[in-house]
Amino acid sequence: VHKQNLAELTHKLDEMHPADVAYVLEALPLEDRLLVWDLVKAERDGEILLEVSDAVRETLIEAMNNRELVAAAASLDTDEIADLAPDLPKDVVQELMKSLDHAKRLQVESSLSYDEDSVGALMDYDFVTIRCDVTLETGLRYLRMLGDLPPQTDKLFVVERDGRLLGTLPLKRLLVHDPEAHVAAVMSDEPVTFHPSDEASDAAQAFERYDLVTAPVVDAKERLVGRLTVDVVLDYIRAESESDLLQAAGLREEEDLFTTVWKAAKNRWLWLGINLVTALIASRVVGLFEGSIEKLAALAALMPIVAGMGGNSGNQTSTLVVRGFALGLINKDNSKRLLAKELGISVLNGAVWGSIMGVVAYLLYRDAPLGGVTAMALGAVMAAAMMLNLIVAALAGYFAPAVIDRFGRDPAFGSAVLTTFITDSMGFFIFLGLATVFLL
Amino acid sequence: VHKQNLAELTHKLDEMHPADVAYVLEALPLEDRLLVWDLVKAERDGEILLEVSDAVRETLIEAMNNRELVAAAASLDTDEIADLAPDLPKDVVQELMKSLDHAKRLQVESSLSYDEDSVGALMDYDFVTIRCDVTLETGLRYLRMLGDLPPQTDKLFVVERDGRLLGTLPLKRLLVHDPEAHVAAVMSDEPVTFHPSDEASDAAQAFERYDLVTAPVVDAKERLVGRLTVDVVLDYIRAESESDLLQAAGLREEEDLFTTVWKAAKNRWLWLGINLVTALIASRVVGLFEGSIEKLAALAALMPIVAGMGGNSGNQTSTLVVRGFALGLINKDNSKRLLAKELGISVLNGAVWGSIMGVVAYLLYRDAPLGGVTAMALGAVMAAAMMLNLIVAALAGYFAPAVIDRFGRDPAFGSAVLTTFITDSMGFFIFLGLATVFLL
Repeated sequence: VHKQNLAELTHKLDEMHPADVAYVLEALPLEDRLLVWDLVKAERDGEILLEVSDAVRETLIEAMNNRELVAAAASLDTDEIADLAPDLPKDVVQELMKSLDHAKRLQVESSLSYDEDSVGALMDYDFVTIRCDVTLETGLRYLRMLGDLPPQTDKLFVVERDGRLLGTLPLKRLLVHDPEAHVAAVMSDEPVTFHPSDEASDAAQAFERYDLVTAPVVDAKERLVGRLTVDVVLDYIRAESESDLLQAAGLREEEDLFTTVWKAAKNRWLWLGINLVTALIASRVVGLFEGSIEKLAALAALMPIVAGMGGNSGNQTSTLVVRGFALGLINKDNSKRLLAKELGISVLNGAVWGSIMGVVAYLLYRDAPLGGVTAMALGAVMAAAMMLNLIVAALAGYFAPAVIDRFGRDPAFGSAVLTTFITDSMGFFIFLGLATVFLL
Repeated sequence: VHKQNLAELTHKLDEMHPADVAYVLEALPLEDRLLVWDLVKAERDGEILLEVSDAVRETLIEAMNNRELVAAAASLDTDEIADLAPDLPKDVVQELMKSLDHAKRLQVESSLSYDEDSVGALMDYDFVTIRCDVTLETGLRYLRMLGDLPPQTDKLFVVERDGRLLGTLPLKRLLVHDPEAHVAAVMSDEPVTFHPSDEASDAAQAFERYDLVTAPVVDAKERLVGRLTVDVVLDYIRAESESDLLQAAGLREEEDLFTTVWKAAKNRWLWLGINLVTALIASRVVGLFEGSIEKLAALAALMPIVAGMGGNSGNQTSTLVVRGFALGLINKDNSKRLLAKELGISVLNGAVWGSIMGVVAYLLYRDAPLGGVTAMALGAVMAAAMMLNLIVAALAGYFAPAVIDRFGRDPAFGSAVLTTFITDSMGFFIFLGLATVFLL
């Protein structure tokens, strides 16, 4: 690249929004990414590091020395420093903390103390407070004095002298009401509030339900400690849904598109290992019936269909159940009805798809030598096995998430493996078992 | 239920936020749901219908007569009427349209004319405009005169007399700047804007990137036509991620937890049908080798492992590629590197997991009678087949989304089926083929 081009590129980067620079960095292979990263103005490093994905952030941080890292992080708000800190080398974090004043250091430490999926980890400290006994006019003058409001501000937080939250004053109301009115008369005194220990996903649901833009976070004594904003909630929701998708495929950590082969492979091993074990167990079920298969090899060709249809059907059930758990829609009163419905569907589907496969199996093997077994009987076994395995699938799809949930794990992660394991093993067992008993 | 209890329940429902009533309705079986629905005040029906899921909405609408439906819908904003209209009976929509004044009817019709995944379908008409040549003081007086601002309002839209958008005036700036200043001097003159035909998912990405709360929507001539708000974007993102999860399991339409068995079963048939066809083809691949399986039934027990590991590995690749497409991160320049990386991983994983399975297969069949075949040779074939099928899996996981994308379909939907189909069929073919050539 020529010097002139580099200068042009630098200029373009300077004019781009940090999120757009982050997007460019995501799409570039490693060496190009680091080249571009060098061209970004140092004072913007911090905000861009916040925008990139975990995997890309790691590569950028590796390319920076400690001095650069401290400078980049020091330019951020305390809640942002806390977001970045877990990815920074330990000595950088220590140096950084030393460079902060006491109040800020306390904020960073408190942010870091919360679980990463809690409101405390997502909140910021960027809010404007007002007393309830002043007039709106005074409030307006106060804001003019401040000269700027924090991003996303749609309401002021009304607090007592001791920091206790009394209510919120939406900017809308501040604007349209008589300036002579008192804050106490105009404020909303039953605002939606959160506690730092609340689960982030519950807070996200509340933001969706009540169409919030910002909300106060209070401690156990109702004292204002922070603020939650919709942009952070939006990022959280997106990150969660992405990580659900990636986890469902067994990608444990976020992988950027150009992670090294070695690192990416390791990232996928746990999943492949689990699947190897379950496949091995299913294979041993088949192994039990090797004698039957030697006599009637058609069984080997038909058995993957019984297992596969069971797996698909079971995962339809488990997806619905997992979603029901996530949304908190499933309770003691309705769970039996749900199970009854899923069993009903499986019986209906078993009749439909079992019959179809019974006929197909008959047609396929009508003219084949089956060593004394009639194609009609083979079709009947196929139909019965499909029917039974779809019922197994409904039970597995229903109970797998429930059991995983009972053990305190996220059903979204393990339900598919567990359901498929059951439908595969049972599918082989039912089909080969019926065939052994009735055909051979 | 006693009368007194009903009265209490009615009272509680009246005090609940519409989104909370919707949540209660979602969790109730059909008859209880309709009972509660009857207790909800008629004037709140409209807003609650907007909050429930599609499947539950259908059940509630079925229980209402035309007069009730028209009244419920007429209480809503025009953009909300347009959201509801597709679910209402045709004669209700006609009657409803007749009851609206000309301007509103035009708004509903225009909202309905946009594709459901476009900005036009998501925008509302609830914005406050201001001229650029007035002072902030005039603006403040104007707002006080309005008495209330639309929900989510964080900025006013600055327009010319002909409706052309000049910029936006964030309420923040209106509040902190000198009231004598002119709007033109204070406004932001390069706001993020959207067109009605823009894709909703692109707009959602822009809201995330630039932390927007509201944004103006303009037509081709830069005239203001609507407004996009973060609460709608949030709902859109959530609905999309839910529908991705459901679709991945082959649940075509949203199903509520208590949909009737018959309807739910039909909802799942397309997917089961597609999977039956692919399983049947894979089964025919096995059918080709029935002679080999008769001689060595161990092949039938081992073949699902080769197929299964390929499927899992292929879906890891395809998940990453689908995500790369969705985020627009994959382009001509980097696609080859991505493919090379995935192939590299598959060779590494093939070596690791192939060796493990080779050894396991040897140990399993060491003492078994294999009709002249050595367990060592069986293990070697197993290892080679795993290795080859993982390479096939990387290719399938990479090209399946690319091909589906080329055909203009959403790769998120079909990639898993296509990838699994290829890894199953090829897994059986490679393993049984190698065994037939080298062992028998």
